[in-house]
Amino acid sequence: MALIVQKFGGSSVADAESIKRVAKRIVETRRAGNDVVVAVSAMGDTTDELLDLSAEVTPIPAPRELDMLLSAGERISMALLAMSIKGMGVEAFSFTGSQAGMITTPEHGSAKIVDVTPGRVREALDRGAIAIVAGFQGFSRDSRDITTLGRGGSDTTAVALAAALAADVCEIYTDVDGVFTTDPRVVSVARKIDHITSEEMLELAASGAKVLHLRAVEYARRHGVELHVRSSFTDEPGTIVYDPEKGHPKGEHMEEPIITGVAFEKSEAKVTVAGVPDVPGKAAQIFEIVAKTNANIDMIVQNVSGADTNRTDISFTVPLGDGHRVVGALEAERELLAYESLQYDDQIAKVAVVGAGMRNASGVSAQLFRALYEAGINIEMISTSEIRISVVTRADLMEKAVRALHTAFGLDADSEAVVYAGTGR
Amino acid sequence: MALIVQKFGGSSVADAESIKRVAKRIVETRRAGNDVVVAVSAMGDTTDELLDLSAEVTPIPAPRELDMLLSAGERISMALLAMSIKGMGVEAFSFTGSQAGMITTPEHGSAKIVDVTPGRVREALDRGAIAIVAGFQGFSRDSRDITTLGRGGSDTTAVALAAALAADVCEIYTDVDGVFTTDPRVVSVARKIDHITSEEMLELAASGAKVLHLRAVEYARRHGVELHVRSSFTDEPGTIVYDPEKGHPKGEHMEEPIITGVAFEKSEAKVTVAGVPDVPGKAAQIFEIVAKTNANIDMIVQNVSGADTNRTDISFTVPLGDGHRVVGALEAERELLAYESLQYDDQIAKVAVVGAGMRNASGVSAQLFRALYEAGINIEMISTSEIRISVVTRADLMEKAVRALHTAFGLDADSEAVVYAGTGR
Repeated sequence: MALIVQKFGGSSVADAESIKRVAKRIVETRRAGNDVVVAVSAMGDTTDELLDLSAEVTPIPAPRELDMLLSAGERISMALLAMSIKGMGVEAFSFTGSQAGMITTPEHGSAKIVDVTPGRVREALDRGAIAIVAGFQGFSRDSRDITTLGRGGSDTTAVALAAALAADVCEIYTDVDGVFTTDPRVVSVARKIDHITSEEMLELAASGAKVLHLRAVEYARRHGVELHVRSSFTDEPGTIVYDPEKGHPKGEHMEEPIITGVAFEKSEAKVTVAGVPDVPGKAAQIFEIVAKTNANIDMIVQNVSGADTNRTDISFTVPLGDGHRVVGALEAERELLAYESLQYDDQIAKVAVVGAGMRNASGVSAQLFRALYEAGINIEMISTSEIRISVVTRADLMEKAVRALHTAFGLDADSEAVVYAGTGR
Repeated sequence: MALIVQKFGGSSVADAESIKRVAKRIVETRRAGNDVVVAVSAMGDTTDELLDLSAEVTPIPAPRELDMLLSAGERISMALLAMSIKGMGVEAFSFTGSQAGMITTPEHGSAKIVDVTPGRVREALDRGAIAIVAGFQGFSRDSRDITTLGRGGSDTTAVALAAALAADVCEIYTDVDGVFTTDPRVVSVARKIDHITSEEMLELAASGAKVLHLRAVEYARRHGVELHVRSSFTDEPGTIVYDPEKGHPKGEHMEEPIITGVAFEKSEAKVTVAGVPDVPGKAAQIFEIVAKTNANIDMIVQNVSGADTNRTDISFTVPLGDGHRVVGALEAERELLAYESLQYDDQIAKVAVVGAGMRNASGVSAQLFRALYEAGINIEMISTSEIRISVVTRADLMEKAVRALHTAFGLDADSEAVVYAGTGR
């Protein structure tokens, strides 16, 4: 008998009909002889509706009260799901984040899980019941208050429960068939990936792949939780995200593909500090100033200094939302830094190719450069990890770059993928 | 500095605008130098919407899950109210029933308060903050589950908090100006009562007056909590419900009116067991059988036995919802009881006149009989307490009877009352 954690997002439980459909699937998993724990998001638009109400009441809601408000969303969906399952003759109990032992830091809106004490979930399983747990929410022992986990919260709840309960697998139900070699809405011949290592998934999620939240993937990787990303609309297997140290889930020793997928995003801006005196310690000064704005720097490029000027250009990328803060901080220190000009460019995109096979393959970057060159796409910045190469291009060339790389690395399928709409929380 | 508990029902917090209006009133009370604790119901139609969702998902929802579901309603209203108050610059914290220490029995949907441990509410007050508490909900230590209190739950939450915190007054905000001598929708010249003793209020509520829930009045009376029933639309004082042993709140020693109010209801049916052998123990047999159905018997009348037949008729009233169960039980025991016939009549109404002054006045019942006789209304049953006379009449004559008694006992005002619509939970 396996212990399976299943996560259903908001679009999977958008109305009474879909709740019943999800309940049926959960009951089938239970009747197949498995112990089942479910993490569920708020129904469809509930969160947005609650946010709208909050905005009508006050422009800047108190974070504690906003968490209290939003946590009502999962309370509704989990109770409806549990009563629907019970209506099908299978014992089920719903638990709030607090009842399920999701202990977090006290930061409202972005709490981090510090402990999981799922005693009541275990008791429910021991009684043969299905446990339905509110995703996205937790409880701080310090403040004794309800918290929410922020973006990717429900996925993280599911993974954290799977880790704490030593579940056999954590199934993430979504509105697509699994993880694809790239977004099928951009590349119609994208292919579903059957198996992917957790490190590859991590790189893809960090580079903009939306199907799984980076945070949940990190948690799963750290705790050795096997993920199964699959569609809530079909019974087809989806994508298994596995720990390579435990070996391939099918016991296969097939050669890893050099490139597993292509990810992309337009969420960053490029800041260029031009004409910086090329003296030791200048870059450190710049990044100390940027660090004080709490902006997350992603890629950094420093040009070779012009021999005659002894000045250099330093470019880096930051999240779009942080860009203007960073520029302001640098402008305020113009005299100290003694640069010639400051440029801000939010028309950039980042495209990344990811593959564990890259470790043992040579010529991957040459292949990437040629593919982009032949597509007429200029590379503005580059960064690499052991299993990833990311490039910055013009934003309006992003999709062209993705298609060129998808084809160049042999990822194109023979037929087009089916694309669904909508995303969960 | 006084400690004031305020209760706002669902119609007072039906949308963002009314929440802001209520928040403003709460803030004014705080700024006037009082400590304020608020019990709030779910917004307007939320409870009905949640019940509809539940009905779409399963015909008979599991009680535990239904309570979990419904408790989301107050969570939404209390968080919005708290953030609205904070938006006005006054510290406020919302607390669930569980957080506020509303400890109940484990019966879902009709839990009873067994203890109130409002430690967190006190802490909030000590910090100068306003505490917003979810009405209607509690927590069972035995089952460790969320419970709801059932009908009149939010009023009871407010009163229980007022008792536990030794509040100076518990203000029940409603959509009418206070407690009236009778329902202004039936008698347009009904008058608002400025002061009423808790025992009179209890009799009125038990006899069908809707403005306060019997349960909350009982709790207030038992714990000596002074109630102030008032309108959430005006600043006018409403009705003070006071403990007569503590004396009149204005220190007045005015003579009590003989009759304070007239209540009425159509929620009962009359069962008549006709032609019962008039032998000792027969009535006991009948009421033992009725007791097994868990029906609440209200009034009982036994006719004088006919001298020639040695048979008698026994009539009693039960809540409409219990009537058919009671009739079924009595039919099943027809042979044992040896009665001649069984009659069920759901076209009855009950009208009650209540007044503490009745104790020291004679001729009240004569006055009542004459008033009804002159209005051409037949009395079918009578029951009395020390401060109440109730009569059963035909249902279609109820309003006529109420008007006749209201006039006969001098309760009519010179002008007509303003009537609002809607009720809270």
